[in-house]
Amino acid sequence: MSAPFSFKLLKTDGTARRGEIVTPHGKVQTPAFMPVGTQGTVKGLMPEAVAAAGTEIVLGNTYHLMLRPGAERVAALGGLHQFMNWPGPILTDSGGFQVMSLSALRRLEEHGVTFRSHLDGAIVELSPERAIEIQALLGADISMQLDECLKLPSSREEIARAMQLSLRWAERSKRAFESVRGGRALFGIVQGGDDTGLRAESAKALVDIGFDGYAIGGLAVGEPQEMMLNIVAETTPVLPAERPRYLMGVGTPDDLMEAVKRGIDMFDCVLPARNGRHGMAYTRHGSINLANARHAEDARPLDAESAHPAARTYSRAYLHHLTKANEMLGQVLLSTINIAYYQALMGEMREAIAGGRFEAFCAATKEGWTRGDLPART
Amino acid sequence: MSAPFSFKLLKTDGTARRGEIVTPHGKVQTPAFMPVGTQGTVKGLMPEAVAAAGTEIVLGNTYHLMLRPGAERVAALGGLHQFMNWPGPILTDSGGFQVMSLSALRRLEEHGVTFRSHLDGAIVELSPERAIEIQALLGADISMQLDECLKLPSSREEIARAMQLSLRWAERSKRAFESVRGGRALFGIVQGGDDTGLRAESAKALVDIGFDGYAIGGLAVGEPQEMMLNIVAETTPVLPAERPRYLMGVGTPDDLMEAVKRGIDMFDCVLPARNGRHGMAYTRHGSINLANARHAEDARPLDAESAHPAARTYSRAYLHHLTKANEMLGQVLLSTINIAYYQALMGEMREAIAGGRFEAFCAATKEGWTRGDLPART
Repeated sequence: MSAPFSFKLLKTDGTARRGEIVTPHGKVQTPAFMPVGTQGTVKGLMPEAVAAAGTEIVLGNTYHLMLRPGAERVAALGGLHQFMNWPGPILTDSGGFQVMSLSALRRLEEHGVTFRSHLDGAIVELSPERAIEIQALLGADISMQLDECLKLPSSREEIARAMQLSLRWAERSKRAFESVRGGRALFGIVQGGDDTGLRAESAKALVDIGFDGYAIGGLAVGEPQEMMLNIVAETTPVLPAERPRYLMGVGTPDDLMEAVKRGIDMFDCVLPARNGRHGMAYTRHGSINLANARHAEDARPLDAESAHPAARTYSRAYLHHLTKANEMLGQVLLSTINIAYYQALMGEMREAIAGGRFEAFCAATKEGWTRGDLPART
Repeated sequence: MSAPFSFKLLKTDGTARRGEIVTPHGKVQTPAFMPVGTQGTVKGLMPEAVAAAGTEIVLGNTYHLMLRPGAERVAALGGLHQFMNWPGPILTDSGGFQVMSLSALRRLEEHGVTFRSHLDGAIVELSPERAIEIQALLGADISMQLDECLKLPSSREEIARAMQLSLRWAERSKRAFESVRGGRALFGIVQGGDDTGLRAESAKALVDIGFDGYAIGGLAVGEPQEMMLNIVAETTPVLPAERPRYLMGVGTPDDLMEAVKRGIDMFDCVLPARNGRHGMAYTRHGSINLANARHAEDARPLDAESAHPAARTYSRAYLHHLTKANEMLGQVLLSTINIAYYQALMGEMREAIAGGRFEAFCAATKEGWTRGDLPART
């Protein structure tokens, strides 16, 4: 459990990639999906259930954990792995995204960002150096540089300014990370909004600085899927083949497949868990809204052929009942089922790439989604 | 899985009893504690987790299930066992208690009770016969007669009237139950408020009618513990030794121990799960409020010697964090830990009775609770 970070590209199929990441807390097969453990927990799920759903790596949120319970406290308690009882690899974000989206009275300066905590209004500072320090205290296997995330659309000038600032922060992050030990990794983050020229400039500059992996940030912020995929397709060729590529905050099952097709290796997203908590299930035949009355008497499971017992065992009628009754178990079961579906999809993509049949797999999978959910026979 | 209901008294120690119930869905060792699966789920917990906490039998609420999803619907879906994926024994209450506590515009008549659903305001009727029918549709291993529950204090006249009505409903329940098949059991419910004379009269009349087991109802409604235990002590001698005795809606760990001492075999209560959802843990050293700031940096588990992994694995600091952050996993973990503590206590009581050392066990257990939780060494 103490191998330093490394990435091995095992196979390519077109621009889709099958690889393996090694971290001090274990291996991750790529393309990989990381469920989000916002506040030190994948909401409602025992860590054993997260693992049993096929998860090899989870994401922790620096912004949330620095405010509560505090990075120093987590460190004193043995680090985030021990704190949340997750023995596998953990990637932490830098906090930049949540500073923009959750905090009030934000002041952005060259040095860093000052903001009011959304919890208690306390004034908090976050700099590239402090973001690295926090992630080291948490014990992240993979840390992210602090960057500035913009909402889209923004002006080209504003996008260029934020991208340049993120690059200067990338350099400072790399320097600060030199004192972090234990074979951990630091990823840089490509910015540049919807401008492919700025994206390429950002990517090249980051590669010059040199990181263990490269993320594409600032997407999945409301732009059309086509724009997002175009940015991904234009950016991945600029990145070195021998480093993992992480598309932050993405996405739907279709987003994942299309981004893998364009050379992405890693993803994180709250969608499967959040939509599960709101009664939506992801399946081979598209998404299903369990709150709909048509499920009230449907004895069929969500997917009799699923590898996950929860998708095979509980009737749609029961999941409908739990959803209507706002029962916690409904949220737990549907979060589990959705994460298991995402992980099964990633596993199938990995197999398809390894077998050189990724295009055919994508077509068949999309056909399943398009077919849609069939009503119960009456 | 198709043995008819039976009860075997294995050992007595003073008036404490060690026994075994057989049901069509498996055996239950007594004294037994039944977690409450109000709406077809023990809140937040997978059935596997309920079983792993040491549970052999759960309780389902007729009132809730008849309103949503409806008894006929549960029956069409294969019954409550299949619906909630709980293969073990299930006891259902008759709905009477919740009609009194949850519904509005209640009208009580000789025939039964008419009320407005707390969900949608629909007018619903519940009679002794319908309560039996509903429980048969749910597929309960043990059904309860419909009774009238009063709040205490009430006048002696009112208590006597409700007790007499409950007796007439008991007779009608027994007749209605004659058509229910499958080796299932029906329990009568002793009423009589805080009047030991009325309680004895109720118990004798129920024994004359003849039931598979006898419950003591209408307690744990706000009266002092001493009054409750006095009623129990005066009632159990009137009940036949060869039938199980069930104290409804009770209680704290101390309540359970004191009631077992007075000859009770079965309990149900929402306390361990409900208090767990509100950040309270039950342990060998009393109850612990995880919301308290003194746990924020406490790396110790709740109980390093617990037989349940959750009580041994997660730090108090983590449980405190989850509680403060209002995270679902905190509710899940503390519900699990509390039910596991209750079940461990029942198991220890069973062993102590079997070994003829129940008094000594009670004294030692109370000493542990009294010792209280020790702060972390600093």
